[in-house]
Amino acid sequence: MNAKINRPTAERLSLYYHYLKEHISPAEATVSSQQIADIIKVDPTLVRKDMAAISLRGRPRAGFDIEQAKTRIREVLGFNTVHRTVLVGAGRLGSALAAYPEFRDYGLHILALFDTNPAKIGTFVGARMIYAMSELSNIVRSQNVEMGIITVPADTAQSVADQLVAAGVTGIWCFSATQIHTPANVVVRQEHLSAGLADILYRQAVKRHEQVEQVAE
Amino acid sequence: MNAKINRPTAERLSLYYHYLKEHISPAEATVSSQQIADIIKVDPTLVRKDMAAISLRGRPRAGFDIEQAKTRIREVLGFNTVHRTVLVGAGRLGSALAAYPEFRDYGLHILALFDTNPAKIGTFVGARMIYAMSELSNIVRSQNVEMGIITVPADTAQSVADQLVAAGVTGIWCFSATQIHTPANVVVRQEHLSAGLADILYRQAVKRHEQVEQVAE
Repeated sequence: MNAKINRPTAERLSLYYHYLKEHISPAEATVSSQQIADIIKVDPTLVRKDMAAISLRGRPRAGFDIEQAKTRIREVLGFNTVHRTVLVGAGRLGSALAAYPEFRDYGLHILALFDTNPAKIGTFVGARMIYAMSELSNIVRSQNVEMGIITVPADTAQSVADQLVAAGVTGIWCFSATQIHTPANVVVRQEHLSAGLADILYRQAVKRHEQVEQVAE
Repeated sequence: MNAKINRPTAERLSLYYHYLKEHISPAEATVSSQQIADIIKVDPTLVRKDMAAISLRGRPRAGFDIEQAKTRIREVLGFNTVHRTVLVGAGRLGSALAAYPEFRDYGLHILALFDTNPAKIGTFVGARMIYAMSELSNIVRSQNVEMGIITVPADTAQSVADQLVAAGVTGIWCFSATQIHTPANVVVRQEHLSAGLADILYRQAVKRHEQVEQVAE
């Protein structure tokens, strides 16, 4: 850790990284803050501020060196480290996440899946086997797993979180529609799909309202 | 539309709603801003500010009337309106989203799924049929579909977005790992799973670093 940044900055840096990786032609060596800002839809001043926070400074007219920026963001956000992970809940969402190709580039290695459904235990999602819950503690301990992804129904998410924490994980990424509680030494990120939905529905309603007002004028 | 709020406020209101729906016992009639703040992990002042923005004010000592708050948030965020939606990309993530039980309560009605895989066309995910892409335009127009959810691979997301926009949707919720471009009258929300991952990995790294520093002191 050699840069102190806040959570929104970390999230934006990951988007810049994604953009640098995906959208820049191999012929380009540099990118301007304006180009990044146009894609991510933020202010170019904010792009420069975020980059400066991790000691990246663009050259006048040319902008940021793309390879240097990618390397530095990977380093700061910890994408070069292998993050040993298990996923609990091998349903549709869990299987989709386990198969998500991008994660590997971020250092996320899902070693094993767990489920309570006897019909699933011993079967595979891609190259990963689905284990019984009774194996969770043993595998987390013996494989030095640091992170757990939870994709079980809301009413069992807390119990799964408790088992993961007891076995020693220090991070939980929870996709179940409930707020889980963990000791202060565990980092939790709760994904709220409904919050994304609320955002888009509200903005659509605002836009419709504006159009009605324009017609009325 | 009878309240002007910004996007972060809309997203937080949806989390308050979720909390009010899930965590409050039926015996309780009121909830304090402190109780909400503790669960969502924000400042109680912010909860009161968000609630005031949609004309909800708590009573001293008692707090907010729960039923009134739920009703008002639903009204402002448009959860009472039926949002006619199609989903393109009936893979694992698409099927998981189509089956997500929470969405219905937010007014999101997924009418049909679309895929390019001939083996999937004509089959069902829950009660919804998977159609061929050639039917997209016709179904969107004839069913007055306003929103499209995109869960196709990144390299085809823009083409799907173009087809949805041409057929008349006004909102796109994109889960593909790419930034799509649409006309200004279309509301787009891009979900970046990698940004969530970056956030949790970075916070874990910070925490480990702090612990190392404490040991070294």
